[in-house]
Amino acid sequence: MRISELSAESGVALPTIKYYLREGLLHPGEQLAATRADYDASHLRRLRLIRALLEVGRLPVASIKKVIRVVDDTSASVHEMLGTAHYALGPPVEREPGPEWEAARREADDLVEALGWQVLPQAPARDELAQTLFRMRQLGLPTDLSAYAEAAFKLVSETEMGTVPFDGPRDAAVEAVVLGTVLYGRAFDALRRLAQESETSRRLTPAPRPGV
Amino acid sequence: MRISELSAESGVALPTIKYYLREGLLHPGEQLAATRADYDASHLRRLRLIRALLEVGRLPVASIKKVIRVVDDTSASVHEMLGTAHYALGPPVEREPGPEWEAARREADDLVEALGWQVLPQAPARDELAQTLFRMRQLGLPTDLSAYAEAAFKLVSETEMGTVPFDGPRDAAVEAVVLGTVLYGRAFDALRRLAQESETSRRLTPAPRPGV
Repeated sequence: MRISELSAESGVALPTIKYYLREGLLHPGEQLAATRADYDASHLRRLRLIRALLEVGRLPVASIKKVIRVVDDTSASVHEMLGTAHYALGPPVEREPGPEWEAARREADDLVEALGWQVLPQAPARDELAQTLFRMRQLGLPTDLSAYAEAAFKLVSETEMGTVPFDGPRDAAVEAVVLGTVLYGRAFDALRRLAQESETSRRLTPAPRPGV
Repeated sequence: MRISELSAESGVALPTIKYYLREGLLHPGEQLAATRADYDASHLRRLRLIRALLEVGRLPVASIKKVIRVVDDTSASVHEMLGTAHYALGPPVEREPGPEWEAARREADDLVEALGWQVLPQAPARDELAQTLFRMRQLGLPTDLSAYAEAAFKLVSETEMGTVPFDGPRDAAVEAVVLGTVLYGRAFDALRRLAQESETSRRLTPAPRPGV
């Protein structure tokens, strides 16, 4: 298809597609003539991935480039590819050096180990968890997170993994991981707030007395 | 205590405390002389709340003022007070008017009703959930969130509610709701990422064959 059809089909504006081509986010079409190139389903799929990373994952263009590079590098394993995308999605964590930070990080690592999870030592979510534990300790909140870990594992293994096409094209798998991570995360967050309102409300409303 | 002691005790810098006083976030101390005022435990508690809203909740000062105003308004019920704080914590939601948005919002409302949760119609988390469902539909992701709702309810009712002192001072209850909402949310998010990495890794690593 021509670039104008690619734009119509994908819903991405023509200047935006040209920008992605210039930035190397989108691979060039097959050159048919000096001013005409042919685009196919791989371009549509790639545009979907870029939009997912940009709009749903809210990643900066520099991070999207890193993800695209590893998707295109077929010498990288699916594992490495998904790891790169996944690690780019997490919030930046500021470590606060000192013995309390070290203790929080150890607590996070111990939890992951006790759960028997296969997680690389450099996974940024370890620091994310450490930072949260650090803060909870400072504020005197209970830090037993086993119920949270159990719930997270159940949702990921029973629902989210089912949406990832591990055997399909590489960008489809990355897209599914990004969308699943972000969207199920937001859904859970909204549901948690709703449950909080409901439970707060229930605890603050006196139970109706019989006969009144 | 004097303002310098309040600063030392709370860890909040003197100019910052003066700024909070000017902005009306912190109530004035008891005026002992033209240049000397006396501060007490209520000021320490208020500073803790402000820091929690600012640093953990990442609320803008304008939202913090709204929360503080309702904490100080003893004619507002605990319920209203917690609602104001809670509603200020959610991310802003951009509605996308049209029949698809309406359908997503109805789906969110139906879910809340089916769960039997006590949630006001104007709760922003309803729109948050609607927006997520809207996006999931657009992208062809499964929208059955009952497992997420069940997990959220369990964590909120069995763990988080236990951290809120419903019978204590008003600002302590607000502080607990803010800290609980934000910090347990972050902990869950980090754990979910760790579970995702572990499950992806497990599914991509061939099982060891016996004798090899």
